[in-house]
Amino acid sequence: MSNKVVLAYSGGLDTTYCAVYLSKVKHLEIHALTVNTGGFSKEEIDQIAARAKSLGVASFECVDVTKEYYESCIKYLIFGNVLKNATYPLSVSAERMVQAIAVANHVKKTGASFVAHGSTGAGNDQVRFDMVFQSMLPGVEILTPIRDMRLSREEEIAFLAEYGVKINAEKAKYSINKGLWGTSVGGKETLTSKDYLPEDAWPTPMTETGVRQLVLEFEKGELRAVDGKRFANPVEAIQHLQAIAQPFGVGRDIHVGDTIIGIKGRVGFEAAAPVIIIKAHHLLEKHTLTKWQLYWKDQLSSWYGNWLHEGQMLDPTMRNIEKFLEDSQETVSGKVFVTLQPYRYTITGIESAHDLMSSKFGSYGEMNKGWSGDDVKGFAKIFGNQTSIFHKVNEPAK
Amino acid sequence: MSNKVVLAYSGGLDTTYCAVYLSKVKHLEIHALTVNTGGFSKEEIDQIAARAKSLGVASFECVDVTKEYYESCIKYLIFGNVLKNATYPLSVSAERMVQAIAVANHVKKTGASFVAHGSTGAGNDQVRFDMVFQSMLPGVEILTPIRDMRLSREEEIAFLAEYGVKINAEKAKYSINKGLWGTSVGGKETLTSKDYLPEDAWPTPMTETGVRQLVLEFEKGELRAVDGKRFANPVEAIQHLQAIAQPFGVGRDIHVGDTIIGIKGRVGFEAAAPVIIIKAHHLLEKHTLTKWQLYWKDQLSSWYGNWLHEGQMLDPTMRNIEKFLEDSQETVSGKVFVTLQPYRYTITGIESAHDLMSSKFGSYGEMNKGWSGDDVKGFAKIFGNQTSIFHKVNEPAK
Amino acid sequence: MSNKVVLAYSGGLDTTYCAVYLSKVKHLEIHALTVNTGGFSKEEIDQIAARAKSLGVASFECVDVTKEYYESCIKYLIFGNVLKNATYPLSVSAERMVQAIAVANHVKKTGASFVAHGSTGAGNDQVRFDMVFQSMLPGVEILTPIRDMRLSREEEIAFLAEYGVKINAEKAKYSINKGLWGTSVGGKETLTSKDYLPEDAWPTPMTETGVRQLVLEFEKGELRAVDGKRFANPVEAIQHLQAIAQPFGVGRDIHVGDTIIGIKGRVGFEAAAPVIIIKAHHLLEKHTLTKWQLYWKDQLSSWYGNWLHEGQMLDPTMRNIEKFLEDSQETVSGKVFVTLQPYRYTITGIESAHDLMSSKFGSYGEMNKGWSGDDVKGFAKIFGNQTSIFHKVNEPAK
Amino acid sequence: MSNKVVLAYSGGLDTTYCAVYLSKVKHLEIHALTVNTGGFSKEEIDQIAARAKSLGVASFECVDVTKEYYESCIKYLIFGNVLKNATYPLSVSAERMVQAIAVANHVKKTGASFVAHGSTGAGNDQVRFDMVFQSMLPGVEILTPIRDMRLSREEEIAFLAEYGVKINAEKAKYSINKGLWGTSVGGKETLTSKDYLPEDAWPTPMTETGVRQLVLEFEKGELRAVDGKRFANPVEAIQHLQAIAQPFGVGRDIHVGDTIIGIKGRVGFEAAAPVIIIKAHHLLEKHTLTKWQLYWKDQLSSWYGNWLHEGQMLDPTMRNIEKFLEDSQETVSGKVFVTLQPYRYTITGIESAHDLMSSKFGSYGEMNKGWSGDDVKGFAKIFGNQTSIFHKVNEPAK
Repeated sequence: MSNKVVLAYSGGLDTTYCAVYLSKVKHLEIHALTVNTGGFSKEEIDQIAARAKSLGVASFECVDVTKEYYESCIKYLIFGNVLKNATYPLSVSAERMVQAIAVANHVKKTGASFVAHGSTGAGNDQVRFDMVFQSMLPGVEILTPIRDMRLSREEEIAFLAEYGVKINAEKAKYSINKGLWGTSVGGKETLTSKDYLPEDAWPTPMTETGVRQLVLEFEKGELRAVDGKRFANPVEAIQHLQAIAQPFGVGRDIHVGDTIIGIKGRVGFEAAAPVIIIKAHHLLEKHTLTKWQLYWKDQLSSWYGNWLHEGQMLDPTMRNIEKFLEDSQETVSGKVFVTLQPYRYTITGIESAHDLMSSKFGSYGEMNKGWSGDDVKGFAKIFGNQTSIFHKVNEPAK
Repeated sequence: MSNKVVLAYSGGLDTTYCAVYLSKVKHLEIHALTVNTGGFSKEEIDQIAARAKSLGVASFECVDVTKEYYESCIKYLIFGNVLKNATYPLSVSAERMVQAIAVANHVKKTGASFVAHGSTGAGNDQVRFDMVFQSMLPGVEILTPIRDMRLSREEEIAFLAEYGVKINAEKAKYSINKGLWGTSVGGKETLTSKDYLPEDAWPTPMTETGVRQLVLEFEKGELRAVDGKRFANPVEAIQHLQAIAQPFGVGRDIHVGDTIIGIKGRVGFEAAAPVIIIKAHHLLEKHTLTKWQLYWKDQLSSWYGNWLHEGQMLDPTMRNIEKFLEDSQETVSGKVFVTLQPYRYTITGIESAHDLMSSKFGSYGEMNKGWSGDDVKGFAKIFGNQTSIFHKVNEPAK
Repeated sequence: MSNKVVLAYSGGLDTTYCAVYLSKVKHLEIHALTVNTGGFSKEEIDQIAARAKSLGVASFECVDVTKEYYESCIKYLIFGNVLKNATYPLSVSAERMVQAIAVANHVKKTGASFVAHGSTGAGNDQVRFDMVFQSMLPGVEILTPIRDMRLSREEEIAFLAEYGVKINAEKAKYSINKGLWGTSVGGKETLTSKDYLPEDAWPTPMTETGVRQLVLEFEKGELRAVDGKRFANPVEAIQHLQAIAQPFGVGRDIHVGDTIIGIKGRVGFEAAAPVIIIKAHHLLEKHTLTKWQLYWKDQLSSWYGNWLHEGQMLDPTMRNIEKFLEDSQETVSGKVFVTLQPYRYTITGIESAHDLMSSKFGSYGEMNKGWSGDDVKGFAKIFGNQTSIFHKVNEPAK
Repeated sequence: MSNKVVLAYSGGLDTTYCAVYLSKVKHLEIHALTVNTGGFSKEEIDQIAARAKSLGVASFECVDVTKEYYESCIKYLIFGNVLKNATYPLSVSAERMVQAIAVANHVKKTGASFVAHGSTGAGNDQVRFDMVFQSMLPGVEILTPIRDMRLSREEEIAFLAEYGVKINAEKAKYSINKGLWGTSVGGKETLTSKDYLPEDAWPTPMTETGVRQLVLEFEKGELRAVDGKRFANPVEAIQHLQAIAQPFGVGRDIHVGDTIIGIKGRVGFEAAAPVIIIKAHHLLEKHTLTKWQLYWKDQLSSWYGNWLHEGQMLDPTMRNIEKFLEDSQETVSGKVFVTLQPYRYTITGIESAHDLMSSKFGSYGEMNKGWSGDDVKGFAKIFGNQTSIFHKVNEPAK
């Protein structure tokens, strides 16, 4: 058994503590891994790398898994129109799973005997990390010093100081987590049930004051072009849309939901591109899928989103659902028209070769050649037959 | 068998045709009934009554079923947070069912042998009327002259002129249907998949330009007070909120959905109060219900909305679901805070004695006394146990 | 437009009538097609062919679609463990869809302008045939003389006699429909709610009085071997098992269900192989799939069975579900042990490399190395956290 | 804080250990409670009481909660036709919840500060007890010595011997748990995936060799009479039926399922009355409920059964579902006819004033007055409209 540990490293206080504690106190060989899911800039990564090296880790790597993140997860969230509790695109939940998987792969690659994460004992992330490691890394021990020792911020800072590591002791007013699928915002307001986030809490200031028309182009459920500009990869299309739309101040909200550990939690988020994409995609589906495709997609994807949120991405049920969702996208191609205005967006309409509303088959409220009023009369009689029999049997005329 | 017919009468072209045709050509005794679900003003009803009498009907009555409408239907749509396809409060679908039931009751009261409605063969309403009559009025014949003879607007006008009945021949640019739970708007744009309704198509002009804070007070899922003003009946609370909110231009959208007859349909609507109430109610539920109450409410109410939309309100399954929904509202009491601004509203937070997010039981992301990090560690181990075993069995280490 | 009609031809009274009526009275060119789904023997087909030719049809063909039937339908009914109302393997419903599709393909091949079926206006089959033809054959007219003219048995016989066609005028005591996935039995008892079919109503007499052990071998959800004997195709495995098991008198029952037209219907069936295969397959799944795979398979396949029963096989939702089901079978391989005895069978156990009950990961009720009692203690605390909070909030100590 | 502990006491090795350990080592005042859910005879209770007193407990009580068990739980399992994994009536799962609740009530009555159960760390019961206590007894500490100290059978016996308590050291070949809703049987075969229980493992020998007809009478879903004999309480009807049916050797099987802790478990059971009642009740429902009542009952009750099994009986969702189920039983009244034979039973038919199959409204396969073939033709056209449009749009003629 080696003394190597792979540490999921973000450069923050908790993971810095872990790096120092595990090497200096536990005498393990630290292999720090930062997993970028689209939220870190080049500069941020350089800073993280620099800090990691300054702590004397045996190795440091940063992997960019943004495309894998899209392919293994975001794609299905779009196919499923997943907005948890009709609101939240699952920005953070989805990201954690992909990060945990990347860390597990690094453990396999390095042959480490330990894997460490900096989660506290109070949130969802600990469960997500634990469960992925447990499934992917049988025999590898999971180390969680912050959780195990119930360390406070102050204790961590004091410990680091002891070992000569200086770290910005001031807690940010709002804790921010940024990734391809949205940015979460937590602060004193989100700890209450009543208060809303103030304007300056949102990471991206509202700077656009005009009106902008957008055309989103989907192919089999995936965003491939914006305003006629085609992207090599949907990831770039998402990033492009996010850059355009977020300054309009849209896609901001507070999500209230059930944490994995059973308490209710509240978190702010800004996610202009995710929210617009999902709503645009959904509208395209309302035109191109049958009633029961829409129905079952709703059932499966609501559950898919919850189960992803709860860290169960490796349950094979998730793979089965992905197959369903993927197959349902065969005809979900076409253009969706969107209008952006300050603090609001409108999905105005669609255009698709697969549009089932095609007037060739009759327009709602207008007669057509495909069927007659008599057909509908017969339909209503048979469609209502059982209910009618039920009432005849159970409320016989006196 | 009497020669009495009860005619569902709205005063429009189609039902005026029915009144004249059924009396003059079919020699039936017309008992016209107008059913108000909150959309007709006193003046409108007087006009409808005057026209009905001018046609020489045997009797005319207008029943106001707004409260029954709320009690038998809207209440459950609120309990269920029903927005069809995540958008539409089912304004028209719900209304038609209640109107059909009121007409059926009138048939029973008058002892009529016939019941007539002015539906064409092209829409949802014919199915809704037919199915209610079929279940509630066994043995009573349903007459639908417009559908049976596939009459055009022009043919109807010509026929009426023959019998000396003048009617405004000009078709309105937008067809409007108004009721307590929203106003639908159809026009040339809604016959396409692409075009959005222009500003002047919306019945209520956007006139409010400021910011307004609102406090909505729910008791067991029902809206009982707005800004501290308590209403004798939730109907009045809804009307009060609608008067405040609609001039902000909120609650407008275009619904795309599956009609009962299998084609896709598109319809605009403005429904500020319904949409705000549902979103506010939903937020309150996110705080006060358990995860699985929310999950099952979603399943049941999505189906409830669809089945109501499809005219199946008399299926006893609907009663069973209503019992579930009603029981789930036991703890859904408290205040919801809303901010209205031009073209947008924000549900900012809630306050409730039943709030499960109460910090007494731990705040998300902060340690607490109820359980420890070790508990969560054990939880994650067991919670992920089956998935972990699945992978061990199916991907054995080489 | 040609005067060719493809007639779905079974050789019975109704389709014989159609052949004569459509040629002699309607002067159409009859192309009779018999579709064998595994229920016709060589002798029966020869008889059907002889009769068809004696009626002077322009062409007669018999296609054997048993393998397509399995591949496009039965396979998924097994994957989904589909027993409608927990009883009926959908023997007839499934068959009709496949027959209708084969007929539609024949229409395309022959370039016919008409397609005819002999359904009456009283059953499910008319809807199944109509709907498949409507989707697959736009522009082709559907002819249903028996339904349209509401013909009685006696009228058909009299008409045929007029044209010199003699047909056995006596109605069989029990109407039998045989196919690969079971044989249905209707008679005077099944028209009541109370009476059971007598012993002699069952097509296969109970002749086995001993005990027989069987080993069924599944690969990815499909039956590939029985008692070590491997079959080239699952169809043969099913037929082999049916020949062994039916003489034990098992797999007999009466199904009570909702017809497509809204009334309740009752039908007897014997289907030893289908019922045993489904129960054996289900047991194998209980060992090899995760809890939520089982859960979602249940939801989807119950709906799949209903929708198939209602003739909606061509709804693309069905394809999406098939993808889910297929993907779920990846690990459903292994042996299932069955004991046959007169009038009963017992699925005694399984053996599989994918068995999640493997004692390597702990046996139920025995301690193991994977987790400790403390872990479960923590699990229970967190697993019950929300319910516990709910009660604390809503039933505060006095 | 008192030093009182309420101990869930069964008289077996584990709970005897707890009694002695908690009093002698932990110096707590033991209040032993035995909860009878219909499985203990008068003699057994006297023995349990005698042993409890011999251990010097401060108090011993035995409460008979059989009727509460029925009212709060079994009734809904019948309404829901709950057979977990299509097999198991949840005999043990249901019972544990009711026992835990009775224990919690005893804690409240006695004002104890502790509550103890004898569960090991390897099964489902620990979770069920923990979760009920946690919700109902905030502030009361849960003691589980066997789990905490990971005691083996031998260690417990040795400890007891030290304190002069003799207990039968021999482990029974099969562990049996008996209650109103069935008897579970565990043994060496159920620890494998392959082996079936031998004839002598079943608690009730098969002694009936003839044929017996039974008439079960249900009122609003509850069994009220057997063979014309009316019972004061459904509990007695169940017991009466069990005494008649179990000697036929029916209702025996092995359940394979997912334990709460994530592993697969296997358990034998004999439950003639529960299984027959559920199947009979289900048949009655197939005749008296509408298609969608049956559909939704299936969804809700399958989940209800799972959630009960997992110890979540106190989740308010369960109450909401019970309201649905109860309301659905309004018309589930009538007689069900059953034939018992050695090792098999047949539910042969029903008779009910609420039977929707009443021939008054048409028999399946026969024409009737309520609707015509033309009506069904129209129905099929509209019912298949969307699928037909889908294919026209997506597979345009070349």
